[in-house]
Amino acid sequence: MNKKTTRTVGILGGMGPEATVRFFELIVKNTDAAVDQEHLRIIIYNFPQIPDRTRAVLYGGQNPVPWLVKGLKVLEKAGAELVAIPCLTAHYFLPELSRRSRLPLLDLVTETVRWTTSSLPGIRKVGLLATEGTVASGIFHKAFARRQVQVLEPGAAGQKKVMEAIYGRQGIKAGFTGSGPARLLQEVAGELISSGAQAIIAGCTEIPLALKPRRLPLPLVDPMNIGARALIIRAGGRLREWPLP
Amino acid sequence: MNKKTTRTVGILGGMGPEATVRFFELIVKNTDAAVDQEHLRIIIYNFPQIPDRTRAVLYGGQNPVPWLVKGLKVLEKAGAELVAIPCLTAHYFLPELSRRSRLPLLDLVTETVRWTTSSLPGIRKVGLLATEGTVASGIFHKAFARRQVQVLEPGAAGQKKVMEAIYGRQGIKAGFTGSGPARLLQEVAGELISSGAQAIIAGCTEIPLALKPRRLPLPLVDPMNIGARALIIRAGGRLREWPLP
Repeated sequence: MNKKTTRTVGILGGMGPEATVRFFELIVKNTDAAVDQEHLRIIIYNFPQIPDRTRAVLYGGQNPVPWLVKGLKVLEKAGAELVAIPCLTAHYFLPELSRRSRLPLLDLVTETVRWTTSSLPGIRKVGLLATEGTVASGIFHKAFARRQVQVLEPGAAGQKKVMEAIYGRQGIKAGFTGSGPARLLQEVAGELISSGAQAIIAGCTEIPLALKPRRLPLPLVDPMNIGARALIIRAGGRLREWPLP
Repeated sequence: MNKKTTRTVGILGGMGPEATVRFFELIVKNTDAAVDQEHLRIIIYNFPQIPDRTRAVLYGGQNPVPWLVKGLKVLEKAGAELVAIPCLTAHYFLPELSRRSRLPLLDLVTETVRWTTSSLPGIRKVGLLATEGTVASGIFHKAFARRQVQVLEPGAAGQKKVMEAIYGRQGIKAGFTGSGPARLLQEVAGELISSGAQAIIAGCTEIPLALKPRRLPLPLVDPMNIGARALIIRAGGRLREWPLP
């Protein structure tokens, strides 16, 4: 029907849906295209019923792996050739998912570490804003440690604020992306910067929905944007200079 | 695996991709959900290689129907139970698509007419901003005529401005959603209002990406938002009061 020179991108999303919208948007906005037809084929499965990842990692909640595998199968059948999962806590399960699916999975944690160490050379300490599940799983700590970068995490009170910003009744997952969650995240980022962090990792895909880079005196590293750009390159798409004129 | 009380929504998109992002976002933002798991399952096929609809309607360009049918099959196989196509020019082909696919298709034109006549009672004339393909196809004219509403369309010079805003080198499909396209569309809307239009129909899904309601002295009717809300109801989701507090 048409010559295929690019790979069809799959997105296993819904964790949460707003983060998935933004990830899709970042792929579209980062693609250099003058007409519709120059954009990438993308299949998105927004599957929000996947059990909460933090609850599974920390509190013996329902295992999301069978659900994630099911979602990957839907994408594979629909023709996806390369998949990203815009939920960083879900990356804890990536090794198991890689064993159980034939689809190549983009590792947003690895991409984030690669971007950080190459774009901010000499960096020694980063602050991590993420869910309890991601913090406790150590996925960022381990990946950064391999590049001699230390990950600072918030204290108990700070971590509670981060969870409130993401999961609270007036939190990001409830649709509130305004100043409430932003202020909580900004406070915790400030504490991490005081402790020596040279950049802040937006280690949960919900965080950049509320916390904007201009609110911080140091770089806010966004795995979503890094991942979107990595995905375009791997899919064979054309990368747009950022930002759009 | 989980009890299904809602239908899986399918979106056949990519016409263009930015409009598809916005349509997805409108579904998520219009859904009343406090946690991820309360959101709808959505499968999106962003298939931008579908040949240009206006070119097919008007200039004997490649027929997009086989591509649209192929896209619907992908969505059906992936589990979609109810589909919307966020491209109004593509609605010209809806009767043929309905015959060739078993999936129920939401008709954004019909939904727009229904919303307009019920929300703006007594309305007699609307102005149409749309692609040449949509204007020439008469899909809005016919649907509004059944409810005794007259559709005013721009003159030749005005229609050229609309096409420039959508397809131009600095147009919406090339990623420019700022003041350039907005000004062109605003000018043409002004002419339609001078001719007696009591509301402006954003009759191409690209238009609300650039033209914001506050730029007009009269209502800007947005088939994307109307369609997103109709889709949530039909899928069995919970509608959020709009706008979000």
